[in-house]
Amino acid sequence: MQVEFKRPSFCIKYLSSLTSDEWINLALSNPIDMLIDHANCERKAAGVAIQLMFRYPSEPDLAEVLSPIAREELEHFEKILYFLKNLGKSLKALKPPPYGTELSRIIRKDEPNRMLDSFLVAGLIEARSHERLSLLALNSELESFRRLYESLLESEARHFGIYWKLAQKKFSKAKTLDRLKELSKIESKILSQTFSMPRVHS
Amino acid sequence: MQVEFKRPSFCIKYLSSLTSDEWINLALSNPIDMLIDHANCERKAAGVAIQLMFRYPSEPDLAEVLSPIAREELEHFEKILYFLKNLGKSLKALKPPPYGTELSRIIRKDEPNRMLDSFLVAGLIEARSHERLSLLALNSELESFRRLYESLLESEARHFGIYWKLAQKKFSKAKTLDRLKELSKIESKILSQTFSMPRVHS
Repeated sequence: MQVEFKRPSFCIKYLSSLTSDEWINLALSNPIDMLIDHANCERKAAGVAIQLMFRYPSEPDLAEVLSPIAREELEHFEKILYFLKNLGKSLKALKPPPYGTELSRIIRKDEPNRMLDSFLVAGLIEARSHERLSLLALNSELESFRRLYESLLESEARHFGIYWKLAQKKFSKAKTLDRLKELSKIESKILSQTFSMPRVHS
Repeated sequence: MQVEFKRPSFCIKYLSSLTSDEWINLALSNPIDMLIDHANCERKAAGVAIQLMFRYPSEPDLAEVLSPIAREELEHFEKILYFLKNLGKSLKALKPPPYGTELSRIIRKDEPNRMLDSFLVAGLIEARSHERLSLLALNSELESFRRLYESLLESEARHFGIYWKLAQKKFSKAKTLDRLKELSKIESKILSQTFSMPRVHS
Protein backbone atom coordinates (compact mmCIF):
# COMPACT_ATOMS: atom_id res chain seq x y z
CA MET A 1 0.00 0.00 0.00
CA GLN A 2 1.32 3.42 -0.95
CA VAL A 3 1.55 5.73 2.06
CA GLU A 4 0.49 9.31 1.49
CA PHE A 5 3.03 11.63 3.10
CA LYS A 6 2.15 14.96 4.63
CA ARG A 7 3.69 17.87 2.74
CA PRO A 8 4.52 21.29 4.21
CA SER A 9 2.16 24.15 3.36
CA PHE A 10 5.14 26.50 2.92
CA CYS A 11 8.19 25.81 0.78
CA ILE A 12 10.76 28.34 -0.37
CA LYS A 13 9.57 29.03 -3.88
CA TYR A 14 12.99 29.06 -5.52
CA LEU A 15 13.46 25.30 -5.22
CA SER A 16 13.01 23.84 -8.72
CA SER A 17 11.67 20.49 -7.57
CA LEU A 18 10.02 18.96 -4.54
CA THR A 19 11.53 16.03 -2.68
CA SER A 20 10.45 12.59 -3.85
CA ASP A 21 8.46 10.06 -1.85
CA GLU A 22 11.46 7.73 -2.18
CA TRP A 23 13.62 10.10 -0.19
CA ILE A 24 10.95 10.47 2.50
CA ASN A 25 10.60 6.70 2.78
CA LEU A 26 14.34 6.19 3.08
CA ALA A 27 14.72 9.02 5.60
CA LEU A 28 11.87 7.83 7.83
CA SER A 29 13.26 4.30 7.86
CA ASN A 30 16.65 5.55 9.13
CA PRO A 31 15.86 8.14 11.78
CA ILE A 32 19.18 7.94 13.66
CA ASP A 33 21.42 8.23 10.62
CA MET A 34 19.31 11.15 9.46
CA LEU A 35 19.81 12.90 12.77
CA ILE A 36 23.56 12.31 12.79
CA ASP A 37 23.80 13.50 9.22
CA HIS A 38 21.80 16.59 10.05
CA ALA A 39 24.10 17.35 13.00
CA ASN A 40 27.01 17.15 10.56
CA CYS A 41 25.16 19.52 8.20
CA GLU A 42 24.66 22.11 10.94
CA ARG A 43 28.36 21.97 11.75
CA LYS A 44 29.26 22.30 8.08
CA ALA A 45 26.91 25.25 7.65
CA ALA A 46 28.65 27.00 10.56
CA GLY A 47 31.96 26.32 8.82
CA VAL A 48 30.69 27.80 5.55
CA ALA A 49 29.53 31.01 7.25
CA ILE A 50 32.89 31.43 9.00
CA GLN A 51 34.76 30.65 5.78
CA LEU A 52 32.86 33.43 3.99
CA MET A 53 33.74 35.85 6.80
CA PHE A 54 37.40 34.94 6.31
CA ARG A 55 37.24 35.28 2.57
CA TYR A 56 35.67 38.76 2.64
CA PRO A 57 37.06 40.30 5.85
CA SER A 58 36.44 43.91 4.81
CA GLU A 59 33.01 43.47 3.21
CA PRO A 60 30.69 45.87 5.03
CA ASP A 61 27.92 44.35 7.15
CA LEU A 62 28.81 40.79 6.19
CA ALA A 63 30.31 39.54 9.46
CA GLU A 64 27.40 41.08 11.38
CA VAL A 65 24.97 38.65 9.80
CA LEU A 66 27.21 35.63 9.17
CA SER A 67 28.60 35.33 12.69
CA PRO A 68 25.11 34.98 14.26
CA ILE A 69 24.21 32.41 11.57
CA ALA A 70 27.29 30.38 12.49
CA ARG A 71 26.40 30.57 16.18
CA GLU A 72 22.86 29.43 15.55
CA GLU A 73 24.03 26.49 13.45
CA LEU A 74 26.29 25.45 16.31
CA GLU A 75 23.44 25.77 18.81
CA HIS A 76 21.39 23.43 16.65
CA PHE A 77 24.32 21.09 16.31
CA GLU A 78 24.54 20.89 20.11
CA LYS A 79 20.78 20.41 20.42
CA ILE A 80 20.91 17.34 18.15
CA LEU A 81 24.01 16.10 19.96
CA TYR A 82 22.17 16.05 23.31
CA PHE A 83 19.04 14.57 21.73
CA LEU A 84 21.20 11.73 20.36
CA LYS A 85 22.92 11.29 23.72
CA ASN A 86 19.55 10.88 25.40
CA LEU A 87 18.87 8.07 22.98
CA GLY A 88 22.21 6.47 23.84
CA LYS A 89 23.62 7.38 20.43
CA SER A 90 26.59 9.47 19.43
CA LEU A 91 27.99 11.34 16.49
CA LYS A 92 29.98 9.59 13.82
CA ALA A 93 31.43 10.39 10.43
CA LEU A 94 28.97 9.41 7.68
CA LYS A 95 29.93 9.18 4.06
CA PRO A 96 28.47 12.39 2.64
CA PRO A 97 26.31 12.47 -0.49
CA PRO A 98 27.86 14.21 -3.54
CA TYR A 99 25.52 17.22 -3.06
CA GLY A 100 27.93 19.62 -1.28
CA THR A 101 30.90 18.88 -3.51
CA GLU A 102 28.83 19.14 -6.69
CA LEU A 103 27.36 22.44 -5.59
CA SER A 104 30.75 23.95 -4.69
CA ARG A 105 31.98 22.92 -8.11
CA ILE A 106 29.49 25.21 -9.85
CA ILE A 107 30.54 28.28 -7.88
CA ARG A 108 32.36 30.47 -10.39
CA LYS A 109 35.98 31.25 -9.56
CA ASP A 110 36.15 34.91 -10.60
CA GLU A 111 34.99 37.72 -8.33
CA PRO A 112 32.41 39.13 -7.87
CA ASN A 113 30.68 36.09 -9.42
CA ARG A 114 32.24 33.88 -6.80
CA MET A 115 30.64 35.94 -4.06
CA LEU A 116 27.21 35.90 -5.71
CA ASP A 117 27.33 32.16 -6.29
CA SER A 118 28.59 31.47 -2.78
CA PHE A 119 25.70 33.38 -1.21
CA LEU A 120 23.13 31.74 -3.47
CA VAL A 121 24.47 28.20 -3.06
CA ALA A 122 24.56 28.63 0.72
CA GLY A 123 20.98 29.93 0.52
CA LEU A 124 19.79 27.04 -1.66
CA ILE A 125 21.21 24.50 0.77
CA GLU A 126 19.29 26.23 3.58
CA ALA A 127 16.15 26.22 1.42
CA ARG A 128 16.45 22.50 0.71
CA SER A 129 17.15 21.78 4.38
CA HIS A 130 14.03 23.73 5.27
CA GLU A 131 11.90 21.63 2.90
CA ARG A 132 13.34 18.33 4.09
CA LEU A 133 13.24 19.11 7.80
CA SER A 134 9.60 20.13 7.26
CA LEU A 135 8.94 16.69 5.79
CA LEU A 136 10.62 15.03 8.77
CA ALA A 137 8.74 17.28 11.20
CA LEU A 138 5.45 16.24 9.60
CA ASN A 139 6.06 12.55 8.97
CA SER A 140 8.47 11.19 11.60
CA GLU A 141 7.00 8.34 13.58
CA LEU A 142 7.98 9.56 17.05
CA GLU A 143 6.65 12.80 18.47
CA SER A 144 10.01 13.68 20.02
CA PHE A 145 11.59 13.61 16.54
CA ARG A 146 8.76 15.63 15.01
CA ARG A 147 9.17 18.27 17.72
CA LEU A 148 12.94 18.39 17.33
CA TYR A 149 12.74 18.96 13.56
CA GLU A 150 9.97 21.51 14.07
CA SER A 151 12.26 23.46 16.40
CA LEU A 152 15.09 23.47 13.85
CA LEU A 153 13.43 24.22 10.55
CA GLU A 154 12.34 27.82 10.96
CA SER A 155 15.89 29.07 11.08
CA GLU A 156 16.75 27.33 7.81
CA ALA A 157 14.15 29.49 6.05
CA ARG A 158 15.42 32.59 7.84
CA HIS A 159 19.01 31.82 6.82
CA PHE A 160 17.91 31.44 3.20
CA GLY A 161 16.43 34.95 3.50
CA ILE A 162 19.69 36.32 4.90
CA TYR A 163 21.81 34.90 2.08
CA TRP A 164 19.26 36.14 -0.44
CA LYS A 165 19.41 39.66 1.02
CA LEU A 166 23.21 39.59 1.10
CA ALA A 167 23.20 38.75 -2.61
CA GLN A 168 20.69 41.47 -3.41
CA LYS A 169 22.58 44.12 -1.47
CA LYS A 170 25.62 43.63 -3.63
CA PHE A 171 24.09 42.64 -6.99
CA SER A 172 21.03 43.76 -8.95
CA LYS A 173 17.76 41.97 -8.28
CA ALA A 174 17.55 40.74 -11.88
CA LYS A 175 21.08 39.34 -11.84
CA THR A 176 20.54 37.67 -8.47
CA LEU A 177 17.25 36.13 -9.51
CA ASP A 178 18.53 34.88 -12.87
CA ARG A 179 21.51 33.20 -11.29
CA LEU A 180 19.42 31.74 -8.48
CA LYS A 181 17.11 30.14 -11.04
CA GLU A 182 20.07 28.61 -12.87
CA LEU A 183 21.62 27.30 -9.67
CA SER A 184 18.32 26.00 -8.42
CA LYS A 185 17.87 23.88 -11.55
CA ILE A 186 21.33 22.41 -11.06
CA GLU A 187 20.58 21.76 -7.39
CA SER A 188 17.47 19.79 -8.34
CA LYS A 189 19.39 17.89 -10.99
CA ILE A 190 22.05 16.87 -8.47
CA LEU A 191 19.36 15.53 -6.14
CA SER A 192 17.71 13.61 -8.98
CA GLN A 193 20.83 11.47 -9.32
CA THR A 194 20.32 8.44 -7.17
CA PHE A 195 22.12 8.23 -3.86
CA SER A 196 20.97 5.28 -1.87
CA MET A 197 22.05 6.36 1.58
CA PRO A 198 19.77 8.17 4.03
CA ARG A 199 21.11 11.70 4.15
CA VAL A 200 19.53 15.14 4.43
CA HIS A 201 20.89 16.05 1.01
CA SER A 202 20.83 12.70 -0.76
CA MET B 1 60.96 58.56 31.29
CA GLN B 2 60.28 54.84 31.52
CA VAL B 3 56.61 54.10 32.16
CA GLU B 4 55.90 51.32 34.63
CA PHE B 5 53.12 49.11 33.27
CA LYS B 6 50.60 47.36 35.45
CA ARG B 7 50.93 43.57 35.29
CA PRO B 8 48.13 41.06 35.95
CA SER B 9 48.18 39.26 39.30
CA PHE B 10 47.19 36.02 37.57
CA CYS B 11 48.91 34.51 34.57
CA ILE B 12 48.54 30.96 33.29
CA LYS B 13 51.65 29.38 34.71
CA TYR B 14 52.57 27.36 31.65
CA LEU B 15 53.67 30.39 29.65
CA SER B 16 57.47 30.28 29.50
CA SER B 17 57.94 34.03 29.30
CA LEU B 18 56.07 37.20 30.10
CA THR B 19 55.26 39.79 27.48
CA SER B 20 57.84 42.54 27.06
CA ASP B 21 57.33 46.23 27.77
CA GLU B 22 58.05 46.84 24.07
CA TRP B 23 54.95 44.88 23.06
CA ILE B 24 52.80 46.75 25.61
CA ASN B 25 54.08 50.09 24.33
CA LEU B 26 53.38 49.20 20.72
CA ALA B 27 49.94 47.80 21.53
CA LEU B 28 48.86 50.80 23.58
CA SER B 29 49.98 53.17 20.84
CA ASN B 30 47.79 51.38 18.27
CA PRO B 31 44.49 50.68 20.03
CA ILE B 32 42.31 50.36 16.90
CA ASP B 33 44.61 47.98 15.04
CA MET B 34 44.87 45.88 18.19
CA LEU B 35 41.09 45.65 18.43
CA ILE B 36 40.69 44.71 14.76
CA ASP B 37 43.42 42.12 15.10
CA HIS B 38 41.81 40.72 18.20
CA ALA B 39 38.45 40.43 16.39
CA ASN B 40 40.27 38.44 13.69
CA CYS B 41 41.81 36.25 16.40
CA GLU B 42 38.38 35.45 17.91
CA ARG B 43 37.09 34.48 14.47
CA LYS B 44 40.16 32.32 13.86
CA ALA B 45 39.79 30.63 17.23
CA ALA B 46 36.18 29.73 16.34
CA GLY B 47 37.48 28.28 13.08
CA VAL B 48 40.09 26.20 14.90
CA ALA B 49 37.50 24.71 17.28
CA ILE B 50 35.20 23.80 14.37
CA GLN B 51 38.12 22.36 12.39
CA LEU B 52 38.98 20.07 15.32
CA MET B 53 35.36 18.92 15.48
CA PHE B 54 35.54 18.04 11.78
CA ARG B 55 38.84 16.24 12.14
CA TYR B 56 37.69 14.02 15.01
CA PRO B 57 33.96 13.58 14.37
CA SER B 58 33.61 10.41 16.46
CA GLU B 59 35.78 11.44 19.40
CA PRO B 60 33.59 11.13 22.50
CA ASP B 61 32.71 14.35 24.35
CA LEU B 62 34.80 16.51 22.05
CA ALA B 63 32.07 18.33 20.12
CA GLU B 64 30.21 19.01 23.39
CA VAL B 65 32.99 21.28 24.58
CA LEU B 66 34.36 22.62 21.29
CA SER B 67 31.06 23.82 19.85
CA PRO B 68 30.33 26.10 22.85
CA ILE B 69 33.92 27.43 22.63
CA ALA B 70 33.35 28.29 18.96
CA ARG B 71 30.07 30.04 19.80
CA GLU B 72 31.67 32.07 22.55
CA GLU B 73 34.53 33.16 20.28
CA LEU B 74 31.95 34.33 17.74
CA GLU B 75 30.02 36.23 20.43
CA HIS B 76 33.23 38.03 21.35
CA PHE B 77 33.98 38.67 17.71
CA GLU B 78 30.56 40.35 17.37
CA LYS B 79 31.09 42.33 20.57
CA ILE B 80 34.31 43.83 19.20
CA LEU B 81 32.64 44.43 15.84
CA TYR B 82 29.94 46.57 17.45
CA PHE B 83 32.47 48.34 19.68
CA LEU B 84 34.44 49.27 16.54
CA LYS B 85 31.28 50.37 14.75
CA ASN B 86 30.47 52.73 17.63
CA LEU B 87 33.88 54.28 17.09
CA GLY B 88 33.15 54.65 13.37
CA LYS B 89 35.68 51.93 12.54
CA SER B 90 35.28 48.65 10.74
CA LEU B 91 37.01 45.33 10.30
CA LYS B 92 39.77 44.89 7.79
CA ALA B 93 42.29 42.25 6.87
CA LEU B 94 45.56 42.86 8.72
CA LYS B 95 48.79 41.15 7.82
CA PRO B 96 49.08 38.49 10.51
CA PRO B 97 52.24 37.94 12.55
CA PRO B 98 54.09 34.64 11.92
CA TYR B 99 52.84 33.27 15.27
CA GLY B 100 49.92 31.11 14.07
CA THR B 101 51.76 29.63 11.10
CA GLU B 102 54.87 28.89 13.14
CA LEU B 103 52.83 27.21 15.84
CA SER B 104 50.90 25.04 13.37
CA ARG B 105 54.19 23.98 11.88
CA ILE B 106 55.29 22.32 15.12
CA ILE B 107 52.13 20.22 15.42
CA ARG B 108 53.26 16.65 14.74
CA LYS B 109 51.62 14.97 11.75
CA ASP B 110 51.12 11.46 13.16
CA GLU B 111 48.16 10.56 15.36
CA PRO B 112 47.61 10.59 18.27
CA ASN B 113 50.48 13.10 18.58
CA ARG B 114 48.69 15.41 16.20
CA MET B 115 45.67 15.50 18.49
CA LEU B 116 47.75 16.14 21.61
CA ASP B 117 49.72 18.94 19.94
CA SER B 118 46.58 20.48 18.46
CA PHE B 119 44.89 20.70 21.86
CA LEU B 120 48.01 22.08 23.52
CA VAL B 121 48.78 24.65 20.83
CA ALA B 122 45.16 25.85 20.87
CA GLY B 123 45.43 26.07 24.67
CA LEU B 124 48.72 27.99 24.56
CA ILE B 125 47.26 30.55 22.17
CA GLU B 126 44.37 31.06 24.59
CA ALA B 127 46.84 31.36 27.49
CA ARG B 128 48.88 34.01 25.66
CA SER B 129 45.72 35.87 24.66
CA HIS B 130 44.68 35.85 28.30
CA GLU B 131 47.97 37.39 29.39
CA ARG B 132 47.94 40.04 26.68
CA LEU B 133 44.29 41.00 27.05
CA SER B 134 44.97 41.35 30.79
CA LEU B 135 47.75 43.81 29.97
CA LEU B 136 45.42 45.76 27.71
CA ALA B 137 42.65 45.67 30.32
CA LEU B 138 45.05 47.13 32.91
CA ASN B 139 46.95 49.65 30.80
CA SER B 140 44.69 50.93 28.01
CA GLU B 141 44.25 54.68 28.10
CA LEU B 142 40.47 54.75 27.71
CA GLU B 143 38.13 53.21 30.25
CA SER B 144 35.84 51.84 27.53
CA PHE B 145 38.77 49.84 26.12
CA ARG B 146 39.83 48.62 29.56
CA ARG B 147 36.28 47.43 30.26
CA LEU B 148 35.97 45.71 26.89
CA TYR B 149 39.20 43.75 27.36
CA GLU B 150 38.22 42.93 30.94
CA SER B 151 34.98 41.42 29.65
CA LEU B 152 36.80 39.25 27.12
CA LEU B 153 39.78 37.90 28.98
CA GLU B 154 38.20 35.53 31.49
CA SER B 155 37.02 33.18 28.78
CA GLU B 156 40.53 32.91 27.31
CA ALA B 157 41.71 31.39 30.60
CA ARG B 158 38.67 29.11 30.72
CA HIS B 159 39.32 27.93 27.16
CA PHE B 160 42.92 27.16 28.05
CA GLY B 161 41.54 24.97 30.86
CA ILE B 162 39.20 23.17 28.46
CA TYR B 163 41.96 22.32 25.98
CA TRP B 164 44.19 21.25 28.85
CA LYS B 165 41.49 18.91 30.18
CA LEU B 166 40.81 17.53 26.69
CA ALA B 167 44.49 16.66 26.39
CA GLN B 168 44.59 15.07 29.84
CA LYS B 169 41.49 12.96 29.21
CA LYS B 170 43.16 11.29 26.28
CA PHE B 171 46.82 11.30 27.30
CA SER B 172 48.67 10.75 30.56
CA LYS B 173 49.31 13.76 32.78
CA ALA B 174 53.07 13.33 32.50
CA LYS B 175 53.00 13.14 28.70
CA THR B 176 50.67 16.13 28.45
CA LEU B 177 52.75 18.22 30.80
CA ASP B 178 56.08 17.36 29.18
CA ARG B 179 54.80 18.24 25.74
CA LEU B 180 53.15 21.43 26.98
CA LYS B 181 56.47 22.56 28.44
CA GLU B 182 58.25 21.90 25.14
CA LEU B 183 55.59 23.72 23.13
CA SER B 184 55.51 26.58 25.57
CA LYS B 185 59.24 27.18 25.13
CA ILE B 186 58.80 27.26 21.37
CA GLU B 187 55.85 29.63 21.74
CA SER B 188 57.97 32.05 23.74
CA LYS B 189 60.79 31.76 21.25
CA ILE B 190 58.47 32.61 18.37
CA LEU B 191 57.32 35.72 20.22
CA SER B 192 60.90 36.75 20.98
CA GLN B 193 61.52 37.17 17.24
CA THR B 194 60.82 40.78 16.43
CA PHE B 195 57.61 41.64 14.65
CA SER B 196 57.15 45.35 14.40
CA MET B 197 53.41 45.47 13.83
CA PRO B 198 50.88 45.89 16.61
CA ARG B 199 49.16 42.51 16.86
CA VAL B 200 47.84 40.41 19.74
CA HIS B 201 50.38 37.71 18.93
CA SER B 202 53.28 39.75 17.59
